[in-house]
Amino acid sequence: MTHRPTARPPAARTGPTRRGLLGWFAGVAGVGVAGSALAGCSSGPAARGDATTAVSATSSKVDFHGAHQAGIATPAQDRLHFAAFDLLTTDKAAVVAMLRAWSDAAARMSDGRPVDASYDAPVLDPAAAPGDTGEADGLNAARLTITIGFGRSMFTKLGLTDRLPPGLVELPAFPGERLDARRSDGDIAIQACADDPQVAVHAIRNLVRLSRGTASLRWSQLGFGRTSSNSSSQATPRNLFGFKDGTANLRAEDPAAFDRSVWVAPDEAGSPAWMAGGSYLVARRIRMLLEVWDRTSLGEQEQVIGRHRLSGAPLGAAAENDPIRLAALPADSHVRLAHPDTNGGAAMVRRGYSFVDENDSLGRLDAGLFFLAYVRDPRTQFVPIMQKLAQNDAMNEYLSHVGSGLWAVPPGVQPGGYWGSGLFA
Amino acid sequence: MTHRPTARPPAARTGPTRRGLLGWFAGVAGVGVAGSALAGCSSGPAARGDATTAVSATSSKVDFHGAHQAGIATPAQDRLHFAAFDLLTTDKAAVVAMLRAWSDAAARMSDGRPVDASYDAPVLDPAAAPGDTGEADGLNAARLTITIGFGRSMFTKLGLTDRLPPGLVELPAFPGERLDARRSDGDIAIQACADDPQVAVHAIRNLVRLSRGTASLRWSQLGFGRTSSNSSSQATPRNLFGFKDGTANLRAEDPAAFDRSVWVAPDEAGSPAWMAGGSYLVARRIRMLLEVWDRTSLGEQEQVIGRHRLSGAPLGAAAENDPIRLAALPADSHVRLAHPDTNGGAAMVRRGYSFVDENDSLGRLDAGLFFLAYVRDPRTQFVPIMQKLAQNDAMNEYLSHVGSGLWAVPPGVQPGGYWGSGLFA
Repeated sequence: MTHRPTARPPAARTGPTRRGLLGWFAGVAGVGVAGSALAGCSSGPAARGDATTAVSATSSKVDFHGAHQAGIATPAQDRLHFAAFDLLTTDKAAVVAMLRAWSDAAARMSDGRPVDASYDAPVLDPAAAPGDTGEADGLNAARLTITIGFGRSMFTKLGLTDRLPPGLVELPAFPGERLDARRSDGDIAIQACADDPQVAVHAIRNLVRLSRGTASLRWSQLGFGRTSSNSSSQATPRNLFGFKDGTANLRAEDPAAFDRSVWVAPDEAGSPAWMAGGSYLVARRIRMLLEVWDRTSLGEQEQVIGRHRLSGAPLGAAAENDPIRLAALPADSHVRLAHPDTNGGAAMVRRGYSFVDENDSLGRLDAGLFFLAYVRDPRTQFVPIMQKLAQNDAMNEYLSHVGSGLWAVPPGVQPGGYWGSGLFA
Repeated sequence: MTHRPTARPPAARTGPTRRGLLGWFAGVAGVGVAGSALAGCSSGPAARGDATTAVSATSSKVDFHGAHQAGIATPAQDRLHFAAFDLLTTDKAAVVAMLRAWSDAAARMSDGRPVDASYDAPVLDPAAAPGDTGEADGLNAARLTITIGFGRSMFTKLGLTDRLPPGLVELPAFPGERLDARRSDGDIAIQACADDPQVAVHAIRNLVRLSRGTASLRWSQLGFGRTSSNSSSQATPRNLFGFKDGTANLRAEDPAAFDRSVWVAPDEAGSPAWMAGGSYLVARRIRMLLEVWDRTSLGEQEQVIGRHRLSGAPLGAAAENDPIRLAALPADSHVRLAHPDTNGGAAMVRRGYSFVDENDSLGRLDAGLFFLAYVRDPRTQFVPIMQKLAQNDAMNEYLSHVGSGLWAVPPGVQPGGYWGSGLFA
């Protein structure tokens, strides 16, 4: 087989973005066809041309760098690819090298660019495997955010237990849960959220590729419909029970609430300095027993949730965002049990996604909610609420918790830095 | 637990649509919040109000009725939920009753309405399970199409072998395939495509619900990124190999090509009358060995496909839609082997979707292409091309066919009719 080189003219290396490629080669998404945009270009099919023609699409980007990681207070994107990794090494230097490579890649992809700088070159080397897997070429950044967390097992594996953050506890066994080890835990977790599933998948796939030899994908989960709203500009979506989910979530517009409930403070009692500005990520894969729920009467469904189904209004109120009168809700309703007022003010920012995977041999869909939440301290926020829900929630009859994980989320990355630089310093 | 009724005022039964609900209760998607829209309404949280205020969103709808089923020539939507069913009965009358209920539900959902007329009532009965599972409330029709096919096994099971269409053959074993029975075949197949995954999932879930006692879900598949373009107004998306996929697909704008290659003619030789205007659906779940592919050089990748990766241009040409000079492509390249000119003119309309499900114990993503194609006669179109590809395609090194199915697709439904009415008449 003869290999023809994929030559490009030696153009200025002005850092064309993935959108630059888009503007030049493929037309603007949904509008043009590659051929016409390229018609005036005689220098071969892989010629990238002048990158200064790149289409501006700033609104599709979320900055990767900052005091906090993106993807936590960011208004929820539509799609999720979540991945848990296990380290294949106990060598801290190798892990740091991977985290550096990952951080660089995440910054580039969040900016709508290919994962690897070699892919920016005016001439791609036909003898080398491309630096980017390519399926996101021509797509914009789709508000991609990539967020990392470190599990307890990573601290043990790397001999870092003296730096273990106090909130990174072993989660207790909760009544009724049926956890599958193949859907739980992991040394490192990565949440990729974007408004286009291909962009989220592209991000995880390329991080998996960069981890080769150092870490291995342990489990992963796609989510297709966000079930949480954490911006007042987003309408509250419905979960697979048909109810609005996320009405009372923390709002991106309320940074004080994030300071109270999500971000680890610089002077957090007993917390190592490297966690300041960080958070904790809890994941629960919650299978929803749709067949049972679908046979339940509307009245019963509303009593179980504590809200009206069509409007989303709390029982006893008229509209979705009316104040909740807890006394008007059944004592075992989900909304009442989970409400901050019945949990000493404890709140969390939820970023859940619906999932539908396959079906079992009885034809029941493996579907439900992939619950993701960020908290300042799992010991006072997630654990006690979960314990109460596991014991009392009327919804338990329709649920099964089959996966679980808790990770310490380091603070944001500064330009030139990397995820967890404070921990590994 | 006390059940409070979900009362609504006795409004005129003017058939509010799902979008009517949206306009009244939840604001327009992404713009409003339910509470404000409902502020002037004092009649309780489930009051639907005057349906004549329904927001018009005609462009989000594809007509369910017609000479051919929707979802074949329809320009490809962004998301897929595919389901294969097995019948639990040999009673034709029960199957017809299910097909009638399914057709009514499919027509309503394609129109952006709840699956069940009881859900239109001005007052929902709190003592009954809702007629619609509700997760698509507030969403528009998202160009939903629902397309049905009948498998050979259905004809056997129901004693209809005298009406078996001649193209509904047992597919031969193809070299290299590793089919999993749990991802293959099925008495009935349903393809739900929509631009919103929640709408596609809602459709399948509610059809599963309506099938209870008559059929059972055998297997199902979600797809998130279409890899085929069958309208000249759609940019060609990239598959998980990073290449544009679908450039030379049949175009919705070319009805003559559909008459030639997709629709069974009224006078089709040896074909029963009930198949006129129908087609055949082939599904192949093709796992793509991404880790192997990602280590392959760009030059090799382009030789395997027969196109340039960035531009999508055929090898030896400059732009994606330039004519393909087959002699410029390696003899074992995918594009050359699959091209109509090397297959006696045989073409098919492809409607493939990418999938990423879980990962195996080695951390490899279970990802690939869920290939869907519609053909006029599998014996002269799909089977010989597939045989040639299975034997010679350079791409086989990077693929594994793990699921397969072939179904006869009846013609379109007329208002008041049902899927397969000609077959069961």
